[in-house]
Amino acid sequence: MIGFGSVGRGIAECIAEKGLDIEITGIADSRSGVISKTGIDIRSVLTKKQETGLCGEEGITPEDILERAEYDVLVEVTPTDAVTGEPACTNIQRALEKGAHVVTSNKGPIALKFSELMRIAEENGVQLRYEATVCGAIPLMHTLRQGLAGNTIQKLYGVFNGTCNYILTRMADEGLTYQQALLEAREMGYAEADPTYDVQGIDAAIKLVILANAVWGLNKTLDDVDRTGIDLLTSDALALAEREEHTIRLIGEILPDEGVLRVSPRILNKNHPVVVRGTLNAVMIETDMAGEITLIGKGAGSRETASAIISDLLFIRDFHAGRS
Amino acid sequence: MIGFGSVGRGIAECIAEKGLDIEITGIADSRSGVISKTGIDIRSVLTKKQETGLCGEEGITPEDILERAEYDVLVEVTPTDAVTGEPACTNIQRALEKGAHVVTSNKGPIALKFSELMRIAEENGVQLRYEATVCGAIPLMHTLRQGLAGNTIQKLYGVFNGTCNYILTRMADEGLTYQQALLEAREMGYAEADPTYDVQGIDAAIKLVILANAVWGLNKTLDDVDRTGIDLLTSDALALAEREEHTIRLIGEILPDEGVLRVSPRILNKNHPVVVRGTLNAVMIETDMAGEITLIGKGAGSRETASAIISDLLFIRDFHAGRS
Repeated sequence: MIGFGSVGRGIAECIAEKGLDIEITGIADSRSGVISKTGIDIRSVLTKKQETGLCGEEGITPEDILERAEYDVLVEVTPTDAVTGEPACTNIQRALEKGAHVVTSNKGPIALKFSELMRIAEENGVQLRYEATVCGAIPLMHTLRQGLAGNTIQKLYGVFNGTCNYILTRMADEGLTYQQALLEAREMGYAEADPTYDVQGIDAAIKLVILANAVWGLNKTLDDVDRTGIDLLTSDALALAEREEHTIRLIGEILPDEGVLRVSPRILNKNHPVVVRGTLNAVMIETDMAGEITLIGKGAGSRETASAIISDLLFIRDFHAGRS
Repeated sequence: MIGFGSVGRGIAECIAEKGLDIEITGIADSRSGVISKTGIDIRSVLTKKQETGLCGEEGITPEDILERAEYDVLVEVTPTDAVTGEPACTNIQRALEKGAHVVTSNKGPIALKFSELMRIAEENGVQLRYEATVCGAIPLMHTLRQGLAGNTIQKLYGVFNGTCNYILTRMADEGLTYQQALLEAREMGYAEADPTYDVQGIDAAIKLVILANAVWGLNKTLDDVDRTGIDLLTSDALALAEREEHTIRLIGEILPDEGVLRVSPRILNKNHPVVVRGTLNAVMIETDMAGEITLIGKGAGSRETASAIISDLLFIRDFHAGRS
């Protein structure tokens, strides 16, 4: 495992707590690392991290983990760099080239280098899985690739950013201004000190790029997304929508036939299935056989992201064990 | 394929129309059958069925298909007999014992003989898949088994019967009585001449039994379900719920720790994610890592059921081809 922030710790905690049949043989954070061929004692590493800020010994680097640890799967959970994708791109590529599967929550490599990394995975006969990069705990990639296999996905849209959804819910419920609701979101820990990435729709746009490339092979980049955030939305606009049993949500949308990727505030009927409240995410998938399928769940959080990573790990395990 | 009613024809139509890489080598309906080692011409069989009511030659029986056709997978889509499970139980068992996988939409065998049939499948190294038995187009089994793999499912509840949901939606929207709404549901083709199976919650209860046995190994039968239907519900009760921003839905619920399976009309806030409209189904899954996940979609229909069957067929194909 490379990266031992809140996502990495969440995965380790869940594996230990639930007694899952998964062994961790190496962990690196940005300043230290630990390697054990016989399996790391997860609880003692979690304690050490909490007490010292380090998961292992200083001087052991991610490169050491990649080259010296014994592993079937690399779990890459370093923070996303949406511009360069590093260091995750390099970490993932090296693991794939060594013949290891990769499971990641890092949006950078999947948004920036999807087709290149998938080609390397295929050449090496291993899997690259990335359920955790889109919509947190919602098993969206599983649904699109396995659950709805055989369907043509004609359109996909919904709420991809919990921070914006929280702000819009609070503006509508309490008549707050955008600035007031943003302040509240910060206090609740839902928004960063610099909220640009969320409120200008960049986070949602990256998720659309990942889906566009993974599901339809559209080869899109962030620049291809027609993007409007919620930061200029007035409480008057929201109040107007609310008067007519409608409300406003920041909707990400993919129209694959037209090649359109769009993030923008949209007026929707309050009964619409993707009009969820608070920090939830919701995605509606329009298909040719299954009709419209909606998925709703938590889009972020340490355990929620761990859920997505662990489902990918177990998929790889069962797939290679011939279990279904 | 055994069974060539609306589900069987829907599957055949989708395979032909979409050019899916699936070959049908034998079809039997209740009165006729057709076998071809090189693959049946689907369109001409569909035409013949429409014109004559027969899919093939009289005298070719389901037994002939099971024994003489060459197949990797049996698609069992005969009508459900919830009491005996026949003839589907026997058909499925014979195919599994011949070393063929089975994909079915038939609730009978899965509700009545799940553990026995799964044991036979395992002994013969083949899969028995049944996505289509619960909630039509919603990939619920996929989500529970793969998408949320590693999670403990703590509770599962929602709307499992589209007919009841349609009746309740119309009673609330238009102030209709139960009898008026039932009549309308019949005219729309959503309710049978004898609506008992739907309105007394038997259909929903069978789905709970399937889930209880498949997901938690609870070994339940229909008699274990605490069941109340909607047929005694008055328009007054609905009007009262509606006054307080609530409404009534027929909710199926599994509490695995308590071993409780329950179908009953429940008062829910209109904002609750499982309060869907018309013939939709909706299921909320409570988990220990992913939190609450809600799935919404069409619970019935020929193409919708075909979607579930085809996703199971492709899962088996990709699994055995080592594709992920």
